[in-house]
Formats: sequence, C-alpha cells, structure tokens
Amino acid sequence: MSLKQVEQVCAWAPATIANLNIGFDLLGLALTQPQERMWARRLSKVQKVELILEEGSTLPRSADKNIAGRAALSLLEKTQANFGVELRLEKSILPGSGIGSSAASAVAAVVATAALLPQMPSMELLLNCALDGEELASGARHCDNVAPALYGGLVLSHDYGQMISLPVPDWTIVVLHPQVQVRTAEARSVLPTTIPLATCTQSLAWMAQFIHSCHTGQHKEAAFALKDLFVGPAREHLIPYFDQCKQIALSLGAISGGISGSGPSSFWICLTLRQAQAVEFGLKQLMQNAQLEHKTYISQINTQGAYAIPQS
Amino acid sequence: MSLKQVEQVCAWAPATIANLNIGFDLLGLALTQPQERMWARRLSKVQKVELILEEGSTLPRSADKNIAGRAALSLLEKTQANFGVELRLEKSILPGSGIGSSAASAVAAVVATAALLPQMPSMELLLNCALDGEELASGARHCDNVAPALYGGLVLSHDYGQMISLPVPDWTIVVLHPQVQVRTAEARSVLPTTIPLATCTQSLAWMAQFIHSCHTGQHKEAAFALKDLFVGPAREHLIPYFDQCKQIALSLGAISGGISGSGPSSFWICLTLRQAQAVEFGLKQLMQNAQLEHKTYISQINTQGAYAIPQS
Repeated sequence: MSLKQVEQVCAWAPATIANLNIGFDLLGLALTQPQERMWARRLSKVQKVELILEEGSTLPRSADKNIAGRAALSLLEKTQANFGVELRLEKSILPGSGIGSSAASAVAAVVATAALLPQMPSMELLLNCALDGEELASGARHCDNVAPALYGGLVLSHDYGQMISLPVPDWTIVVLHPQVQVRTAEARSVLPTTIPLATCTQSLAWMAQFIHSCHTGQHKEAAFALKDLFVGPAREHLIPYFDQCKQIALSLGAISGGISGSGPSSFWICLTLRQAQAVEFGLKQLMQNAQLEHKTYISQINTQGAYAIPQS
Repeated sequence: MSLKQVEQVCAWAPATIANLNIGFDLLGLALTQPQERMWARRLSKVQKVELILEEGSTLPRSADKNIAGRAALSLLEKTQANFGVELRLEKSILPGSGIGSSAASAVAAVVATAALLPQMPSMELLLNCALDGEELASGARHCDNVAPALYGGLVLSHDYGQMISLPVPDWTIVVLHPQVQVRTAEARSVLPTTIPLATCTQSLAWMAQFIHSCHTGQHKEAAFALKDLFVGPAREHLIPYFDQCKQIALSLGAISGGISGSGPSSFWICLTLRQAQAVEFGLKQLMQNAQLEHKTYISQINTQGAYAIPQS
C-alpha cells in the first residue's frame, strides 16, 4: 500500500512574546491566540513559491522578498524538493504588533511546506529555514520568537549555548496591542549600552529564581520573578500609556508584565481567567478613554506549537 | 521520663565556595572538606560566652568581638536562654582563604549552641544569628557563605527574593588555596561598576542554563554553564598564577572553575575523582615550581550542612 501524496495543507503558527523582561533576547513563549493560518498547495514547478496575498495586502508579492516565501523557498531548496508551493497567507497577527508576526509567518510557511514533503525534516532544519525568513524582517537570526512559534511552550534560546524548552507555568496572559508604530531600530537604540553591576546581579538572581520556579511548578513565583530592570525602563516611553497600563494591570491582579518584543504590545501575567478578564477590561477602558485603536487577547502558553493538517 | 539535659556537644560546619562566577553574590555551595569543628559546653552564667582558642591563635578572645562568640551570644539572647556557653574553637579552615572560614565559625557556633537549648530553634533564626557573627568579619550580612554552611548543598541567596536550595550536581571539586593574602576590600574595588549589556545578557543566559541543568541532572552542562564573564576577569590578577592554574585544570579534565569568594582560593569542577586527582596533582606541581605555600582539597558538594553531636 502506498500513502497518497498530500496535495494541500493548512498550517497554524502561534503569536509569541519575546524578551520577557529579564529574558531580554533570551526567553520567548508561544500564545494560544492569536494564531497565523496559512495554506500550502503543491505545484509542479520545482522549488518555486507562489504567493496569494489577502486583498489590499501591502506585503511583498515576490516570494524571495516575502518572509513566508523566503522560508518556504529555503526549505524546498535544502530538501531538494521536486515540487513547488503555492502559499495563501491570511495575516491574523498584525505586522509590527510586537507579538512575533514575522516569526509566525515564517514558521507557518515551513510547517505547511514540510507537510508536503515525502518525509518530515528535522526540527533543526525547520528552525533554520524559518530563520531564513525571519532574517528578512529583523536583519538578524534571533530565535526568541521563531523557536517558541515552532516548538510551542517557553523556550530559552541563546547564541552561546543550547536551546532549552522549559517547563511551562500555568498562566493566563493578557496581551494589549495599541495600534501605534514602534520602530524596532528605535527600540534598540534607546537601550543602555552598559548596566550597573548591582542591576546585573539582581537580574541574575531573578533569572535563577524564574528558572527554578518553572521547574518546581511555582507559577506565581515564576511570574513574580520576571522583573524588568533594564530593558523596560529604557523603552517604556515608546509605548503609549505604558505606565498607566502597568498600574491598572497590577491593581487588578496581574502578577507582572512588560513590553512584548520591542512593543507596542504589552503582556500581563495572571493566574486565573477571572483576573485576566478584569485586567483586559481595565486596559480596554484606558484605551477607549484615550481614543486609541487597540486589540486585546487572553491567552495561555501554547504548548503545541505550529502544526499542519492535510486538506482534501 | 524526662530527657537528660545535654551538657556538651561537638559541631561541624563545612567550608563553602561563594560567588561561583556568574553566581556573583548569589550562589554558594558547601564542601565535604575542609570542615570547622567546635565544642560547646553548658555554663551556668546566663547568656555569657567564654572562648577557648588554640595555642598561638590571633583571634579575638572577647566573645563579642569574635565571630563564633558573637553568633553564639546572639542565639542565647534571642532564645532568652537561661545558661551560657563555653566554646572551644579548632580552626581547620584558614582565615582569609576565601572558602568561608568566618561563615563556618559562625555557623558551627550557632549549631553547637542550639544543640544545648531545650528545643531546636528555626533554621531562619540560626541563619540570622550566624549572620550576626559573619557581619563582624565582612561588615555585611551576605548569606552566600553562611546559608550553604548551615543548610548544606547549593544555595541561591539574594536580598531581593527567596533563599533557594537547588538540586545538587554530582561534581568533584578541587580547591587550591595558595597561601597569600587577598584583601576583600581590594577584591571589591577592582570590580567594574558597569557591565556591557551584551555581557549581562550572556550571563543571564548561562545562569538560566545553569539552574535548568541542576534541575534536569545534567551535571556536565551545569558546570559548563558557570561562565565567568565579569568578576573573574577583573580579579584574576590578584590571584597568583591564576591563568596557569586555569590552563592546567581545564587541560586535565576540569569542566570549569574560578575564584572562590574573593580569593585567593580557586575551585575546579570535575566529573570524576580520577580527573580531580589529576587536576590536584597538576596544580600542586605548579605551586611547588613557584615555591608557593598552598593547600589543596578534593571535595564533593556537602548536602548535609552543619550538625552537632552530643558528647558524654
């Protein structure tokens, strides 16, 4: 019996929160929502990628210049595929939101394309191809959004050692996306170049406590340990009403929170859905009073990661 | 039936390694050797401490000025004891060695004195009284030697959060004590006041990997993660032949190592006794060639901590 060749798949890849305060450039986690959805259809043109964008989309139409297209191309080339792919993109995660829109596109594209291959490539190869896409967006091969989008869960990724999937705390996270633009380059430029020794030592202590709490299932302590000692304070002024958001979220039950990626989204960690709903309501009121367009999400940590389902 | 009152005890408290590179001011571990030994005998004089020092000892004879005396006094006062204590000190851990000599004295004194009390005080109280003694030596209430000497094991202690006992890696540690003086004040003064952001982030990554590796029983990875990115490089010139020690230790099988406390002792982490013996031999040869008085110890992590045994 030979398996029927898959002709078309739909893939999902989650939004992600990178940085996580003391986890600057290191920690990232996958959200249960929003998720990016992408369809891939087998084409006979060898190692070619064609894109179908949504109406009015301003994303690049040339596969090589598009994050999803580049990622899919990279996988086709590296696996020496004897076919091509038509990708249909549906952007659910707004570009520039700070919750891993480009990483989700890149990951959805590789996971969808991989599902058309005769055998599943290694996760390392998928990660590598997704990074080829992500690089188009950020100019760097940072794993902190791509890795959790692909693997799911809470991932420690750094250039100097291993990629580590950590035990996942049972959190309910409120994400607030005020629809303003924060340029990543500016968010980088406001960072301090040096950190006082005492701040560095404090950060190390909180990081140690965070990892320990994840391993011992101390969900509240893990959230509490996510102090923001040097990145947030430098960037907060770039995020509209960040200070008020923080006051509201903490007063309504969030344990901690901060800037997601380089903003403008912020995340607020709660221990129950009830608290999360109260925090979401409070943040929405603030945004409405300020007449600021925004989106909110209530999410848990997504332990599944990206996946694809064959379509008939 | 009433229990017979204990009249005399002997207590042991271990030497400790504090700092542990990226664990500067945070991490400390207890050694199986050397250990400090101290005898306590009940006196009828209420809340008085009398000291018996070794012949030729230069330690203060007045209880209130002596680390062990002060710690014992503090415990007698805080428990409103109706007796006093004669402490007989036997210094096995040389003062100024950088392996927690003063912490071991303070801890041995409180553990010995506590064993004479009608009921055992809390560990928190014992820690607090030991810190009263340690403060005499260092001018600060740092827990990074005192906590592991008291509790045993590998302890994360910081001023901002909890005290955490971590799962203990299965290491064999070589300690080299070149008998020179390093003034703690000088060792403090050479530290950088600020750290480059990238160094801070790298340290955070290694700390995360260290705590994760302890929890997952990855003994080698835990040792490997103990990078020394900012403290060691600033202090190495204060430790004679440190660079050569490092080269020798790593070439003979040590996974990592660094300066213990503020020196002059250094520690070298191995995975087997055989490697540790080779490293010890190599380091001893170097010291002999340099005609430098020294001591070495081969030790594991002491998970028992300080204890007392009644004497008849």
